[in-house]
Amino acid sequence: MKLAILNGPNLNLLGKRETELYGNISFERYLSYLTDTYKSVSFSFFQSNIEGELITKLHEVGFSYDGIILNAGAYTHTSIGISDAIKSIHAPVIEVHITNTFSRESFRHQSYISPNAKGVIIGFGLQSYELAVQSFLLHQNN
Amino acid sequence: MKLAILNGPNLNLLGKRETELYGNISFERYLSYLTDTYKSVSFSFFQSNIEGELITKLHEVGFSYDGIILNAGAYTHTSIGISDAIKSIHAPVIEVHITNTFSRESFRHQSYISPNAKGVIIGFGLQSYELAVQSFLLHQNN
Amino acid sequence: MKLAILNGPNLNLLGKRETELYGNISFERYLSYLTDTYKSVSFSFFQSNIEGELITKLHEVGFSYDGIILNAGAYTHTSIGISDAIKSIHAPVIEVHITNTFSRESFRHQSYISPNAKGVIIGFGLQSYELAVQSFLLHQNN
Amino acid sequence: MKLAILNGPNLNLLGKRETELYGNISFERYLSYLTDTYKSVSFSFFQSNIEGELITKLHEVGFSYDGIILNAGAYTHTSIGISDAIKSIHAPVIEVHITNTFSRESFRHQSYISPNAKGVIIGFGLQSYELAVQSFLLHQNN
Amino acid sequence: MKLAILNGPNLNLLGKRETELYGNISFERYLSYLTDTYKSVSFSFFQSNIEGELITKLHEVGFSYDGIILNAGAYTHTSIGISDAIKSIHAPVIEVHITNTFSRESFRHQSYISPNAKGVIIGFGLQSYELAVQSFLLHQNN
Amino acid sequence: MKLAILNGPNLNLLGKRETELYGNISFERYLSYLTDTYKSVSFSFFQSNIEGELITKLHEVGFSYDGIILNAGAYTHTSIGISDAIKSIHAPVIEVHITNTFSRESFRHQSYISPNAKGVIIGFGLQSYELAVQSFLLHQNN
Amino acid sequence: MKLAILNGPNLNLLGKRETELYGNISFERYLSYLTDTYKSVSFSFFQSNIEGELITKLHEVGFSYDGIILNAGAYTHTSIGISDAIKSIHAPVIEVHITNTFSRESFRHQSYISPNAKGVIIGFGLQSYELAVQSFLLHQNN
Amino acid sequence: MKLAILNGPNLNLLGKRETELYGNISFERYLSYLTDTYKSVSFSFFQSNIEGELITKLHEVGFSYDGIILNAGAYTHTSIGISDAIKSIHAPVIEVHITNTFSRESFRHQSYISPNAKGVIIGFGLQSYELAVQSFLLHQNN
Amino acid sequence: MKLAILNGPNLNLLGKRETELYGNISFERYLSYLTDTYKSVSFSFFQSNIEGELITKLHEVGFSYDGIILNAGAYTHTSIGISDAIKSIHAPVIEVHITNTFSRESFRHQSYISPNAKGVIIGFGLQSYELAVQSFLLHQNN
Amino acid sequence: MKLAILNGPNLNLLGKRETELYGNISFERYLSYLTDTYKSVSFSFFQSNIEGELITKLHEVGFSYDGIILNAGAYTHTSIGISDAIKSIHAPVIEVHITNTFSRESFRHQSYISPNAKGVIIGFGLQSYELAVQSFLLHQNN
Amino acid sequence: MKLAILNGPNLNLLGKRETELYGNISFERYLSYLTDTYKSVSFSFFQSNIEGELITKLHEVGFSYDGIILNAGAYTHTSIGISDAIKSIHAPVIEVHITNTFSRESFRHQSYISPNAKGVIIGFGLQSYELAVQSFLLHQNN
Amino acid sequence: MKLAILNGPNLNLLGKRETELYGNISFERYLSYLTDTYKSVSFSFFQSNIEGELITKLHEVGFSYDGIILNAGAYTHTSIGISDAIKSIHAPVIEVHITNTFSRESFRHQSYISPNAKGVIIGFGLQSYELAVQSFLLHQNN
Repeated sequence: MKLAILNGPNLNLLGKRETELYGNISFERYLSYLTDTYKSVSFSFFQSNIEGELITKLHEVGFSYDGIILNAGAYTHTSIGISDAIKSIHAPVIEVHITNTFSRESFRHQSYISPNAKGVIIGFGLQSYELAVQSFLLHQNN
Repeated sequence: MKLAILNGPNLNLLGKRETELYGNISFERYLSYLTDTYKSVSFSFFQSNIEGELITKLHEVGFSYDGIILNAGAYTHTSIGISDAIKSIHAPVIEVHITNTFSRESFRHQSYISPNAKGVIIGFGLQSYELAVQSFLLHQNN
Repeated sequence: MKLAILNGPNLNLLGKRETELYGNISFERYLSYLTDTYKSVSFSFFQSNIEGELITKLHEVGFSYDGIILNAGAYTHTSIGISDAIKSIHAPVIEVHITNTFSRESFRHQSYISPNAKGVIIGFGLQSYELAVQSFLLHQNN
Repeated sequence: MKLAILNGPNLNLLGKRETELYGNISFERYLSYLTDTYKSVSFSFFQSNIEGELITKLHEVGFSYDGIILNAGAYTHTSIGISDAIKSIHAPVIEVHITNTFSRESFRHQSYISPNAKGVIIGFGLQSYELAVQSFLLHQNN
Repeated sequence: MKLAILNGPNLNLLGKRETELYGNISFERYLSYLTDTYKSVSFSFFQSNIEGELITKLHEVGFSYDGIILNAGAYTHTSIGISDAIKSIHAPVIEVHITNTFSRESFRHQSYISPNAKGVIIGFGLQSYELAVQSFLLHQNN
Repeated sequence: MKLAILNGPNLNLLGKRETELYGNISFERYLSYLTDTYKSVSFSFFQSNIEGELITKLHEVGFSYDGIILNAGAYTHTSIGISDAIKSIHAPVIEVHITNTFSRESFRHQSYISPNAKGVIIGFGLQSYELAVQSFLLHQNN
Repeated sequence: MKLAILNGPNLNLLGKRETELYGNISFERYLSYLTDTYKSVSFSFFQSNIEGELITKLHEVGFSYDGIILNAGAYTHTSIGISDAIKSIHAPVIEVHITNTFSRESFRHQSYISPNAKGVIIGFGLQSYELAVQSFLLHQNN
Repeated sequence: MKLAILNGPNLNLLGKRETELYGNISFERYLSYLTDTYKSVSFSFFQSNIEGELITKLHEVGFSYDGIILNAGAYTHTSIGISDAIKSIHAPVIEVHITNTFSRESFRHQSYISPNAKGVIIGFGLQSYELAVQSFLLHQNN
Repeated sequence: MKLAILNGPNLNLLGKRETELYGNISFERYLSYLTDTYKSVSFSFFQSNIEGELITKLHEVGFSYDGIILNAGAYTHTSIGISDAIKSIHAPVIEVHITNTFSRESFRHQSYISPNAKGVIIGFGLQSYELAVQSFLLHQNN
Repeated sequence: MKLAILNGPNLNLLGKRETELYGNISFERYLSYLTDTYKSVSFSFFQSNIEGELITKLHEVGFSYDGIILNAGAYTHTSIGISDAIKSIHAPVIEVHITNTFSRESFRHQSYISPNAKGVIIGFGLQSYELAVQSFLLHQNN
Repeated sequence: MKLAILNGPNLNLLGKRETELYGNISFERYLSYLTDTYKSVSFSFFQSNIEGELITKLHEVGFSYDGIILNAGAYTHTSIGISDAIKSIHAPVIEVHITNTFSRESFRHQSYISPNAKGVIIGFGLQSYELAVQSFLLHQNN
Repeated sequence: MKLAILNGPNLNLLGKRETELYGNISFERYLSYLTDTYKSVSFSFFQSNIEGELITKLHEVGFSYDGIILNAGAYTHTSIGISDAIKSIHAPVIEVHITNTFSRESFRHQSYISPNAKGVIIGFGLQSYELAVQSFLLHQNN
């Protein structure tokens, strides 16, 4: 099973910024944990602060991967372009968020991505990604 | 680990109503599957169409269980009372939805429950419940 | 032809409260009139002040009756749960109101029930129920 | 009993346009049915695509008829002038709609006419008109 | 003088939940204080988490008591049904709140109950109930 | 000085409808009063219930009259077309209303006509028209 | 006949500020013109930049004058207090504006004063005041 | 190819009114240009200031013409009736505007017609009509 | 115990204006009643129609009095400045209203003062002030 | 004549994604058609998923080309930056859309680009581009 | 260079109230610092809690000073009168705020003053005033 | 002291585009002026039209510079990502704008950046940057 993990703006600072909100381990270290734990899955990872690069990457992986785990960060709330890209590709996309976006500012309550996502997982810290992986595995077994 | 699953209005019709939207197996049968699969978990289950009974049940299980999985159905979007109950109790609550509420009517996009939930899982069919179970297990192991 | 009449909150006070608005005969007495007049129809009647009990009753009658006449009272304007129940069942539901809700407070102008109802009859006093009965009879004859 | 039926814009196409929505018999034919069925009623019928002609017709019939059945079509949602006309005349007006306007576009959910109508009947196909006739007959007998 | 005190959802947890917000004595203990202090008043008390049971109770006490003190909790902000019940009965209703609802979430700023209440007392802790008792006594003496 | 008076929908019922609101003399009789009182003014009068006929009349008188007194009735609040017509012609237009539109329904508080009118006179009964005549005379003398 | 003219904030600059908008003669000079022209009227004049002083002045003249001509300037759009004062007094109040407030910024389109005013005159330059005087004279003669 | 051009309110003043906005040649002269240039097309032209006449004309040409070019003028922004008429007929309708409605007042930014139009052409002066003609020719050739 | 009572705009007319709404005894007379009844309390009283004078008075009494009873009248709904002043001082402020502001115009439903007030008492007529006095006495005894 | 065609996000998938909506020929192939058909025009083409690259490209071509045809895709509805760029350059910009954006989701009804565009062409499939080319040619000939 | 500093409501409490928000030195002391530091500038200072007095002061200094530094406090968000005064005078006005109004309550995000101010300086503590002084000096030197 | 100046989209055209709005000297030339004038400051400068590149640059300079002066141009009003980046870094950010954004289009009145900025300086032309520099110097000296 091939899964792509895409992270949006500011998520390159994970482990460095606002650690009381996002925790203090970097995403790279968390990715090793995922790779070690889910050996049947082949992971690919991409991070960009640029909306259009995320769109391009969705096009690249969207026709050959089995699934995409997308944390679009701030673009979640403003990008119709990423939302359109999800609709254009074949691979199912799971939207994840580390924090509970609904208990933060009201502009984080709207997501352009959710209506086109297969599922949404919010607020479990980095484990949001792991639950997304498990959702793909569960689906595969059914 | 003791987990309570609470279902709100109309979810007693699962497997019977709108099967193209909600699937065609009843929740009772799905519960057997969960019980069989997660033997280390002791499940308790409650369904009610009455908002106030759900509040009362949250009070009952909220001080002794390790976690609560709540699908409040239509009350998700209108019940400040259930939301207040979640804030009043000790057990963490995971909000789950079978369908992707964000790709349905706009009045389903607002949830009074999400801001007080520990996490939110939306759109994976009945597997939304299983992912919630796994989130408690993952958390236990960390 | 089997028809169920469901009345929501405060309608048990019909004939007692705000008689300048709702008239001064009780619903029970009106029901006798309907039973006497429409002998080919078998009527069942249920009233509750509890939203969830109305949902449960809709489930009960919704798969075996030929039609339902529903005056959800104040829940008309706030209950997504009743609206979902209507969508879940097979029997067609006619929404009725005794007073002209559109010439009263603005929060009575919105109905969650109307979009899922087969038809809506508003403002004819208790005769709103009778017109609903006739709509089922007319439909049967066509 | 003298009743006037007034139809607004595009309703001259009944039976021709969007037949899956409005059915396929013309209003003229339906009028014969009404005339034949309700022999105690003297019907008069008027259709216009012009808002002001509907206002003028309301003035004409509004001081001598026993009742008016009005389907203002699209003007329902925009015409304060027709609404004012209803308030200015003596005959009671029943607002009718063929389709369930509340399950269509949101701009069809607002009616300027409803607050001034005696009653509102929505969504019964052409039978909405017949139910309006019956409401006048019921009222006469009480 | 006969006064009924009605408490809505989650108020059964008073003294247990969110004590920094609501204080730490139970309502039962506070009720003894009221009973001891105001011996000329005959108190009756009712709590329910179910909206419809509060409506039913208002019907029960609303035609025989001298006044009702109502803390509808979360239903304050969503229940048109309770508001209608208040309008339907004879006994005057004083709306009370323990906390200052206007300095909390914006959805707590709207009350469906206030327009139909005789008076509103907000933010004095449990003393809000006592001030309501005094308002009835003051009124009696005038 | 040539002045045209244009009246919109339902104003043909002046003196007949809602006399507590609009008074009980017809516009024709009032027009004689104006003609008798202001002999230096040549009046022309037009009433229509049809929006487009008012537009056409504005075109007709708008390039040759010294001024226009317009009571567009209900079209005041909905007609961009009449507003555009005012902008298209040369004669200055005074908007008048018999009643105080600002103390009536909120949909009467917006006027599409006011921004393009030279002046607005509201709430003086039929004298609103006379004040408009005087405004033209005052202007002429300055 | 005793008439009071009250001017609100910034109107003391008339003839000095924004003369392309407000003209270039001072209000004092205009007042002489009114006094000279309408000899049967006894005028009193008051200007203040302070909202509360305008309220107090309305109280002072409101029980003994035959009428009040009020240009509340910017307070027109924000002062509930002046509006309440108008409702509290006996003398009828005519609201006037020099410029067409409806063709300026949108926050000038709302007036708290209009609903309580007897009439409204907008956009005739300083002649708005004169038309208000004439409205009192016309009324006196009828 | 038979094409009908329909113009709405005030467009009869083309070449006369607001020439800095709309240019200074009349529509009649422009129509000769179109007729001369596109000889393979048979043009029919209709203008009315009356909303309902535009609806009626759409009914007339809508079942026999190959296409309709509609500039509904001010009715673009307010007429649900014209929009419904477009939906009721067979001929495709191209919505055109001479000026760029999006750089004018905000009430001109909403069009009831666009959702039902086949295409929309805005802001090219009178050439908007010509581009619409060409769109029909292009379509014919494909 | 030192308590200051502050009254805002138009409240100097109490007993004179709108007596069906506000009663017919003046505030001065009511103040004597309070002084006579609550001898342990030293009262100071201030009324102004000027927003800024109320702010200044809040500054004056706000650092030395035990409590302030504030009826800000119309400024309740528009004054951020008074609200800021309450936040700036030490003495607790009880907001009172004579009438039930929530059953009047909708612009009276918003209060800038409530979020910063210690408590709010609405709708008990002049007894609203007395209940506020009692709230301070109750608090002192606890 | 030099024309630049700029395409925004996801339009690189033309012919591949959502072919029932966008058709099934690639933009490259369509560009050949344009080049072959309009030999007097020198075309340049640019596509990017990155908002800022579209801005930069507008700067590059905006001072030397005769015109720009811009389909900004999803950025149409969110990019003030692209809109500002259009205002900053000399070349006229025609906004085009393949689908009828007004019959899709409501967030596609707002365009930041339209107010600054010379003209707008919506809903003609790929022919929207060709009509834009023709608009430049028509303009050149006048 | 003559500069006037105007402070609005509650700013007389600077150094006394909410010192964690506004700092703990009084404005008088800060003014000495400014006077000592900028010897080429002649400062005048005025504070008032009364909206109308600030308007009057703006009139006084607005035709003879070189610039005005205005912190209108709470009136920033509600006073059209002060905004009009700024537009009426000749001296340029710099709007300053001590705290970052955009990170506080949402009603502080709107300023009626900003659109008419020459510049706006927000959030630098008392240094906001000093930066405003420097802006006048910079401007003088260019 | 190390200060970074970051400019957003279209600001590379400074001195070239809309010179009546933005002035006619390039930012490069203005930067020389700053460098020459403030010799104690080490300046670094970066411009990009790409939102994500501005985010990345904020990460780069945000942990080592003493301050950042940010003019995010159009992204000010739409970018949650830049706003999040500011919150994530250590260096204080001053938001600057050349023009008075509050006297332009309403969509420029909202800034996602202001709530997270240390201070905001608006409307002083290029001197907005210089005032920002001085704010850092003032702060250093205190």
